[in-house]
Amino acid sequence: MALIVQKYGGTSVGSAERIKNVAKRVAKTRAEGHDVVVVVSAMSGETNRLVALAHEMQDFPDPRELDVVLSTGEQVTIGLLAMALKNIGVDAKSYTGWQVPVRTDNAHTKARIEDIDDKVMRADLKEGKVVIVAGFQGVNANGDISTLGRGGSDTSAVALAAALKADECQIYTDVDGVYTTDPRVVPEARRLDTVTFEEMLELASLGSKVLQIRSVEFAGKYKVRLRVLSSLQEGGSGTLITFEEDNNMERAAVSGIAFDKNQARVNVRGVPDKPGVAYQILGAVANANIEVDMIIQNVGAEGTTDFSFTVPRGEYKPVLELLNGLKESIGAAEIDGDDTVCKVSIVGLGMRSHVGVASKMFRTLAEEGINIQMISTSEIKVSVLIDEKYMELATRVLHKAFDLG
Amino acid sequence: MALIVQKYGGTSVGSAERIKNVAKRVAKTRAEGHDVVVVVSAMSGETNRLVALAHEMQDFPDPRELDVVLSTGEQVTIGLLAMALKNIGVDAKSYTGWQVPVRTDNAHTKARIEDIDDKVMRADLKEGKVVIVAGFQGVNANGDISTLGRGGSDTSAVALAAALKADECQIYTDVDGVYTTDPRVVPEARRLDTVTFEEMLELASLGSKVLQIRSVEFAGKYKVRLRVLSSLQEGGSGTLITFEEDNNMERAAVSGIAFDKNQARVNVRGVPDKPGVAYQILGAVANANIEVDMIIQNVGAEGTTDFSFTVPRGEYKPVLELLNGLKESIGAAEIDGDDTVCKVSIVGLGMRSHVGVASKMFRTLAEEGINIQMISTSEIKVSVLIDEKYMELATRVLHKAFDLG
Repeated sequence: MALIVQKYGGTSVGSAERIKNVAKRVAKTRAEGHDVVVVVSAMSGETNRLVALAHEMQDFPDPRELDVVLSTGEQVTIGLLAMALKNIGVDAKSYTGWQVPVRTDNAHTKARIEDIDDKVMRADLKEGKVVIVAGFQGVNANGDISTLGRGGSDTSAVALAAALKADECQIYTDVDGVYTTDPRVVPEARRLDTVTFEEMLELASLGSKVLQIRSVEFAGKYKVRLRVLSSLQEGGSGTLITFEEDNNMERAAVSGIAFDKNQARVNVRGVPDKPGVAYQILGAVANANIEVDMIIQNVGAEGTTDFSFTVPRGEYKPVLELLNGLKESIGAAEIDGDDTVCKVSIVGLGMRSHVGVASKMFRTLAEEGINIQMISTSEIKVSVLIDEKYMELATRVLHKAFDLG
Repeated sequence: MALIVQKYGGTSVGSAERIKNVAKRVAKTRAEGHDVVVVVSAMSGETNRLVALAHEMQDFPDPRELDVVLSTGEQVTIGLLAMALKNIGVDAKSYTGWQVPVRTDNAHTKARIEDIDDKVMRADLKEGKVVIVAGFQGVNANGDISTLGRGGSDTSAVALAAALKADECQIYTDVDGVYTTDPRVVPEARRLDTVTFEEMLELASLGSKVLQIRSVEFAGKYKVRLRVLSSLQEGGSGTLITFEEDNNMERAAVSGIAFDKNQARVNVRGVPDKPGVAYQILGAVANANIEVDMIIQNVGAEGTTDFSFTVPRGEYKPVLELLNGLKESIGAAEIDGDDTVCKVSIVGLGMRSHVGVASKMFRTLAEEGINIQMISTSEIKVSVLIDEKYMELATRVLHKAFDLG
């Protein structure tokens, strides 16, 4: 008998029928003798509906109030799933973030979990109940409702698994595991039985969309056994995320291709080339709680430098506004950007011991006439920023070039 | 400068545009120098949508979980209204029931307010903020979300006004006050400038639908100055609910006609005519937390008695099930009923000093061939239970007979 945390995303709970199917799956795990904690997202489409309503009220909805509105999506799902379970004779009890409580910091709409109290959940599990927790949400020290940002339900699930010392955290999604790349873009994409934590981290952060990056970080930090499974088909063991590097020397150099359209490039041109400028620019962006991804700095004309970085598209306009307000104090000649770009990355632990991986990537793209705007590299990945219209093409040719099919 | 509690119902916040209109009205009251606490319902249609989802999960949704689901409706509205106010430069902060907190008993889906903490609200008002509170909901001693039952937002508003010792509690609705009867049924219906607490209590409890009965009881108990106003038109002073009987001797005998379709009749036939039988039947019903309205007992055949009472239609099936389970222990010959009945009542403080009011009512109905199934009377009202198909006709002829046009 194990303690299993299962997380079901928006598509898996997207209708009354699907919620009933989730209930059946949970009941099956329970019947196998396991204790089950279920984390659910809002029904698909619900969060978008609520965001749209909020934007009808304010161009930039107040973050505290946005969290009040958005958190209702998951709250509806937990109640409905508890009813569906009770309807098939499985005792269950739902909890919102504040009822657990899942304590977070004060960064509304992108809060971080600080602490989870496992007392009430343990008491319910002991009584044989299935515990259902609303993903994506928590409560901060002021007693305000907070949300963890898009995809935050994955993080909720892993954090709960860590707090409960669960035997496994199962993420049910509309794919049956982690693939070499998105099968919707490259039909030859292959499911990986295992993927290392580091690779998964890069695949998730680069937009393979299977898991939210923070959830993978959390799993790594707290050594949570994490598995990605399909909620739409029965059986199948999905992809297990491993935390030890395997010793297979024959390992392929590249294990997957990730891509991410949620990218916008911001250019700060003609700033004085002196110490402190990068900090002046990025410090302001960080203070506004905006995540920066790729960063490059070029030499500009006559003692000036050009500074570029990428942010999520939703932050593109706020960042431009912010920097235009600082234009004079930074001493920048021009601030512009482009929000029709995307990032494509090759990822693989084997890359460390294989030379020439990056150059092969660049050659492959050049042969297709795809211009590279920015490059960023780490030990196990190489990312390029390109025009978004080439995203599918670049992914397909790289998948082929690295024999991933 | 006064402290005003304003309550806006589902129709008043039924769309993004309408929420913005509510924000303007609140801003106007604030600009007049008043402190404002706003109580809102769910956007119209939302509660029904959520109830339907719950019923797809379970025929009789688990009450605790139903409250988890239903309470999200108001939670969305408070967040949206706070945004709309901030968007026009009015500082505001939203609170769910548990955040205030509004403490209730444990009767899920029909909880009663036990206590309201005014600390956080007072602090916000002191800072010049508009405080927005979700109606219809609270939190019980277990930390579970509770709801007050349909129309509970009125009760929330009056209870908040009492807790804050507000100068006035304004209920904004889609009518501009209390009428002699529903203008949709009788076009000649007239708005009353004032109505006494007792009359209002009867009018509300008998289904005039303007205010929820518990809110009027609350207002009477805590001497809250209560006013009903239109949220759809500007100006107008609505109807003020007064708590002192005026001394106008010329007062009309009948001040209004109320009707209520939410009635079902239950008959317990052929029970032994001995002490304790009424208690045995109604005690079980009360223990199930089901409200009983009219009650009559007739003499039956050979030492038996027939016992009839009415309940809200939603409780009709549960009551029949409950009583069938007790049939043997009660010793009843038959248990049946009718859920196609309605109650029509004449209400008026002046009735006390005018004889013949009841007989005039019965004669008027008889002249139209309307059969009376049950009669119940109090000092200021006479109610009859009739076939629901005669409801509009009965209301119209009584309105005319008592010169209310």
